[in-house]
Amino acid sequence: MALIVQKYGGTSVGSVERIKNVARRVIKWADAGHQVVVVVSAMSGETNRLIALAREIQPEPDPRELDVVAATGEQVTIGLLAMALKSLGRDARSYTGFQVGVHTDSAFTKARIESIDEQRMRADLELGRVVVVAGFQGMDAQGNITTLGRGGSDTSGVALAAALGADECQIYTDVDGVYTTDPRVVPEASKLPSITFEEMLEMASLGSKVLQIRSVEFAGKYRVRLRVLSSLTPWDLPLEDEMRSGTLITFEEDQNMERAVVSGIAFARDEAKITVVGVPDRPGIAYQILSAVGQANIEVDMIVQNQSVDGFTDFSFTVGRSEYARALGILKNEVQGHIGAREVLGDPKACKVSIVGVGMRSHAGIASTMFRTLSEEGINIQMISTSEIKVSVLIDEKYLELAVRALHRAFDLDDPAAG
Amino acid sequence: MALIVQKYGGTSVGSVERIKNVARRVIKWADAGHQVVVVVSAMSGETNRLIALAREIQPEPDPRELDVVAATGEQVTIGLLAMALKSLGRDARSYTGFQVGVHTDSAFTKARIESIDEQRMRADLELGRVVVVAGFQGMDAQGNITTLGRGGSDTSGVALAAALGADECQIYTDVDGVYTTDPRVVPEASKLPSITFEEMLEMASLGSKVLQIRSVEFAGKYRVRLRVLSSLTPWDLPLEDEMRSGTLITFEEDQNMERAVVSGIAFARDEAKITVVGVPDRPGIAYQILSAVGQANIEVDMIVQNQSVDGFTDFSFTVGRSEYARALGILKNEVQGHIGAREVLGDPKACKVSIVGVGMRSHAGIASTMFRTLSEEGINIQMISTSEIKVSVLIDEKYLELAVRALHRAFDLDDPAAG
Repeated sequence: MALIVQKYGGTSVGSVERIKNVARRVIKWADAGHQVVVVVSAMSGETNRLIALAREIQPEPDPRELDVVAATGEQVTIGLLAMALKSLGRDARSYTGFQVGVHTDSAFTKARIESIDEQRMRADLELGRVVVVAGFQGMDAQGNITTLGRGGSDTSGVALAAALGADECQIYTDVDGVYTTDPRVVPEASKLPSITFEEMLEMASLGSKVLQIRSVEFAGKYRVRLRVLSSLTPWDLPLEDEMRSGTLITFEEDQNMERAVVSGIAFARDEAKITVVGVPDRPGIAYQILSAVGQANIEVDMIVQNQSVDGFTDFSFTVGRSEYARALGILKNEVQGHIGAREVLGDPKACKVSIVGVGMRSHAGIASTMFRTLSEEGINIQMISTSEIKVSVLIDEKYLELAVRALHRAFDLDDPAAG
Repeated sequence: MALIVQKYGGTSVGSVERIKNVARRVIKWADAGHQVVVVVSAMSGETNRLIALAREIQPEPDPRELDVVAATGEQVTIGLLAMALKSLGRDARSYTGFQVGVHTDSAFTKARIESIDEQRMRADLELGRVVVVAGFQGMDAQGNITTLGRGGSDTSGVALAAALGADECQIYTDVDGVYTTDPRVVPEASKLPSITFEEMLEMASLGSKVLQIRSVEFAGKYRVRLRVLSSLTPWDLPLEDEMRSGTLITFEEDQNMERAVVSGIAFARDEAKITVVGVPDRPGIAYQILSAVGQANIEVDMIVQNQSVDGFTDFSFTVGRSEYARALGILKNEVQGHIGAREVLGDPKACKVSIVGVGMRSHAGIASTMFRTLSEEGINIQMISTSEIKVSVLIDEKYLELAVRALHRAFDLDDPAAG
């Protein structure tokens, strides 16, 4: 018997019929002898409806009051799911974040979980009840209702699993696992039966939208075993098949993963590159350039500075494309003259492609295989940055699909069964 | 400076524009130097929408979970109203029943308030904030969400006023006060500037739908001064005019009221009469007749038993018309033979008309004026029952309007300005 936390997103509970199917799936796990805590989001569309209503009242809604309104979305779902479970003969209890003691800081609309009182849930589980908890929400030290911000229900699920010491946190979503790359770009992409946390973090931050990055960080910090599963499979799929159908996110690098040096190809569209050319190479220059951008609340992604030659260097970084014009203006008008740079250049049509894999650590030559592959396709590399388990390159966005497909093949990721 | 609790019903907060108008009205009171606590219902239609959703999941929804779902309706309104107040420059804080410590028993969907923690509200009021509280809801001793049942928001308002020792509880509704009778039946009906609690209780239970009877009882018990006001008046009506426009429910019989012996004419449609004829007059007979009806969950209204003659008496009572056939069947099949009654007669087309007034206590002849008036109109009286401040008669339902109009005139209640 295991203690399992399952999280179902807005699409999975988007209608009365879907809520009933979630109840059936939960009961399948409970009938197999497991204790189950279910975390749910608001029915799809509901959070947007509530926020739109709030904006009609106040174009920039007061954050504390917006959380009071938005938190009702998940509260409706927990009640409905508990009813569905009861109508199918399984005892259940629903709880808001407030009731189950999900303590957060007071950063309304983007609060962070600090602790959870797990006693009440445990008492229900001991009585054989399914516990249904509202995701996305909590309470601060003053007893105000808070929400965790978009995607916060994943984090709720992981945090509850950590507080309960659950054997596994299962995230049900409308994709059925983590793939070697986006199947829309590479039809031969194959599903990974498992992936390490470090790889998942690199994949997530690079644009694989399977899990919210915060929830993965949280799971890594508290060593919660995570499994991504599809809520689109038939609810009566046998348990073993259901387990096999997803991706397990592990802490250990298993033997199989050692063989696959590169686990996946991640990419990010809509990047823009800015280069400050001929920067006098003296301490504090990088700070002066980036602080001006940071103060304007523009997020910076890749940063590259090369060895200086004759006392001058070039400094490059990338921003989201929608911020490009603003960032370029700040650098030309506020920074260039101030630091004595020769020129500010930009390119709003770039994209980032990365190879990710824990196996990279012990294998030389991975980066060169990447660069050779791109070169053979005639793709020019504009910037390179690396981490222990990742190599990222910035290239012209028109080559994105070509680069991803070529790399996917070069690193033997194509699914022999697909394509 | 006074401390005022205002309650706004679902129609008054039924749209974004109406919520904004409520905010403007509240600010008018606050700007006059008053501390204001506002209790609100769910936006009109919202509670029904939520209950319908629950019934789609479970035809007879689990009461605990139904309360979890239904309580979200008011939670949305409090957030929106607090935003509206803030957007108009008035600091405000919203609270759910849970947050403000509205403690109830555990009778889900029809819970009763036991106590309220008023400290948090008082702290906000001291800081000049308007406090916005969700009506209709609370929490039980185990921390479960409860609701007070239909119309419970009135009770919430009165209970908060009692807990805070408020100077007045103002119930804003879509009628503008308490009338001498239903203006749809008597166009000359006039609004009562004030009415006593006892009269209000008689009027409410007899079908004047202005206030929920439970909230009036609650106000009487805790001696909360109640005022019924219209939310349909312009929000910028001067305060004095707004006060005058409603009806005050008082504990004292003032001099004016002493003059009006009868304050109003109440009535109830859709009554049905059942008479058990020739009942042997021995102890326990009334119990034997009524317990059979009560066990079938049929509510009994008027009960009349006359002096017995020759050891036999007739026993009559009324029930709601929809229960008539069932009640008659029970009496004929289960009771008549058992108690040795001669016959069971019934009439499904009756109505009850009552005159109500504290002045009656000290005036003889009021009842005879009533009976004479009805007799002059050719209306036969089928049953009579009386209390200290009320005389009720049961008559054929076809005479209802005629009887109400005639009595309204006979007791000088017609508004000289109307009709």
